[in-house]
Amino acid sequence: MIEMNLGTTLLSLRNQKPLVHNITNFVVMNYTANALLAVGASPVMAHAPEEVEEMVGLAGSLVINIGTLSSTWVEGMEKAMVAACQLGKPVVLDPVGAGATTFRNDTLLRLLAAGTPSIIRGNASEIMALAGQQGQTRGVDSTQFSTEGLESAQMLCRQLGCVVSISGETDVVVGPESVAYISNGNPIMTRITGMGCTASALAGAFAAIAPNAFEAAVAAAAVMGVCGELAYEGAHLPGSFQMSFLDKLSSLSPAELDERVQITIENNG
Amino acid sequence: MIEMNLGTTLLSLRNQKPLVHNITNFVVMNYTANALLAVGASPVMAHAPEEVEEMVGLAGSLVINIGTLSSTWVEGMEKAMVAACQLGKPVVLDPVGAGATTFRNDTLLRLLAAGTPSIIRGNASEIMALAGQQGQTRGVDSTQFSTEGLESAQMLCRQLGCVVSISGETDVVVGPESVAYISNGNPIMTRITGMGCTASALAGAFAAIAPNAFEAAVAAAAVMGVCGELAYEGAHLPGSFQMSFLDKLSSLSPAELDERVQITIENNG
Amino acid sequence: MIEMNLGTTLLSLRNQKPLVHNITNFVVMNYTANALLAVGASPVMAHAPEEVEEMVGLAGSLVINIGTLSSTWVEGMEKAMVAACQLGKPVVLDPVGAGATTFRNDTLLRLLAAGTPSIIRGNASEIMALAGQQGQTRGVDSTQFSTEGLESAQMLCRQLGCVVSISGETDVVVGPESVAYISNGNPIMTRITGMGCTASALAGAFAAIAPNAFEAAVAAAAVMGVCGELAYEGAHLPGSFQMSFLDKLSSLSPAELDERVQITIENNG
Repeated sequence: MIEMNLGTTLLSLRNQKPLVHNITNFVVMNYTANALLAVGASPVMAHAPEEVEEMVGLAGSLVINIGTLSSTWVEGMEKAMVAACQLGKPVVLDPVGAGATTFRNDTLLRLLAAGTPSIIRGNASEIMALAGQQGQTRGVDSTQFSTEGLESAQMLCRQLGCVVSISGETDVVVGPESVAYISNGNPIMTRITGMGCTASALAGAFAAIAPNAFEAAVAAAAVMGVCGELAYEGAHLPGSFQMSFLDKLSSLSPAELDERVQITIENNG
Repeated sequence: MIEMNLGTTLLSLRNQKPLVHNITNFVVMNYTANALLAVGASPVMAHAPEEVEEMVGLAGSLVINIGTLSSTWVEGMEKAMVAACQLGKPVVLDPVGAGATTFRNDTLLRLLAAGTPSIIRGNASEIMALAGQQGQTRGVDSTQFSTEGLESAQMLCRQLGCVVSISGETDVVVGPESVAYISNGNPIMTRITGMGCTASALAGAFAAIAPNAFEAAVAAAAVMGVCGELAYEGAHLPGSFQMSFLDKLSSLSPAELDERVQITIENNG
Repeated sequence: MIEMNLGTTLLSLRNQKPLVHNITNFVVMNYTANALLAVGASPVMAHAPEEVEEMVGLAGSLVINIGTLSSTWVEGMEKAMVAACQLGKPVVLDPVGAGATTFRNDTLLRLLAAGTPSIIRGNASEIMALAGQQGQTRGVDSTQFSTEGLESAQMLCRQLGCVVSISGETDVVVGPESVAYISNGNPIMTRITGMGCTASALAGAFAAIAPNAFEAAVAAAAVMGVCGELAYEGAHLPGSFQMSFLDKLSSLSPAELDERVQITIENNG
């Protein structure tokens, strides 16, 4: 059923320990950094316009997350995006709160004008909002959430030429040729702040070492989901779960990942 | 002994899941967001002057915390305060470190000139410092800590027309008509950073759904205190306690809250 | 074997509860503040140029950490450094990522021009990069890591007249007259973000109360290492370890510290 060997990808991440450059929000910086360390990558956080270009040059990938943005940070994000694209380094964009404010929408347009991310990862409403800005203006029917989300992701994928990953009860990863559905995870993950941001950070880590962006986005979603299930087995409340999830990112074996992942891959289109 | 049905208020919070807009400090952002999620609310952190007005419009309440302030953040806080007051959304102000520096005192004056918070929550020294700026210049006798703190809170309540909540061994909530004394909690809470900030965030969550600011401030203090006691039962050291406290915010039942809260309410004046 | 009574120093810290003013990075602010509280100190985080001078005046020591720097923060760091030196308050400098970007190198030169820290604490590569800026331009041979690191630290100590503390498998503290080798700790500490930053924060706490900077740096390294060992006994994975380490900082007894520390002190030079 699994078309990719995700266990091998995880092993490769741990062997290569890629440096992931994060320009992310204040809420999740500590947790994201610990998650990257736990899974086997190496995080660096740097946002100043004065240094992001050099830092991108040292890193294997760049993760841009607009969770708590401000104008000087946007300047740093834009410079980092340009530098990463010039150097051919993969970029993951997390459009936190897309659609909520004009400032967020404008920032996303500005970043997408500066370069093309390898992967955009968000929840369905963020992906739909982002797609709306790109031309889709149909109303969103919450009962048709999945279908609308998938269509938005497919549109973004086609227009921008990037992989789009939607987190939800079932994670959906849309690539140019395939769509993957990963149905691991646990509802408690919506009760911990920054789980989506962590998924984006892991996508950045995998993008630095995977053969392509689609496989990186799938691996990140799979690791998140499987570790969420494993953590929940021993921790049913959010404080304990937050801690246990880091433990599982660290102890997850490649075999366990392959064994537990529930994934279906279809043709896109 | 209990004049309010705090369990019902907690249930109402969980049913309504209010969006709480926080402009808070870097130290506590992650913990505060997780505490809001754990208790049943929905947090958003946004500080940029470019977007705070729109974000306040989406939220049920606003929490302003000056813990790690800087000039651009103050601009955002001021705009958010004005917008919230215009829209009739409740505002909680946490005057972290009031009295410590001129910048903090000036910022607090500026924010209070921009609008009136529904609730001011701080420790006794912060409330006394804030009251001092409002005209009270008597010396503070630390042995008469409680009395001085209470008098400062009553003065602020009268002058500004807002509820004032003092955290301490006994929490004291001063409203226009009543004063509540909540004597739950555990001393270990002073050994975890951001417990006061968390109390303010919860006050914001309750303010979004409670019938009035007094009841919101009381509910927040009660939930903090009872969860502190419950968490301490199984976690006597600060790292474990920090985690367990989030668990208890999540698992606390309305009945347990009503059963364990130790509250006395008197007339104010 | 122990030349200093570290247990007595720890006891003194807990009795005096020094206020430690931190200008540090976004990633570690929460953990650092909790670590300072757990060990028995009192943290304050404040970075605005408008208030750092006043805040330094209230504090027992200043910790400057350039982990996520930006231009306005550098301005605050510089002002705080000048104020601390004028007031004779000890300063700990953590040159996070020294050598990685021009902005970091320039910032470090600017800070060292503004004042002399009592203690510089970093990992070997950061100390070597910092020493390189101070004149040392020899290539770094990673197999001779320890020797190169020690020579760099000795050079910085001589040139700047400050204590230099290198964190690693063995921590090395270089003072004007002595070099201490502390061989406690556990490799998992490299898998938790901000352990080095925490070591710097503790060095700040001890600097506020210890007889001299050398003893403060040694005490901080010893407490970190011993608590790392104690925490690992019950927590072999990073999420659990992060929590347990705070617990141990809080429960570590002076006698336990003296009993478990593995330290050798030699003459410097």
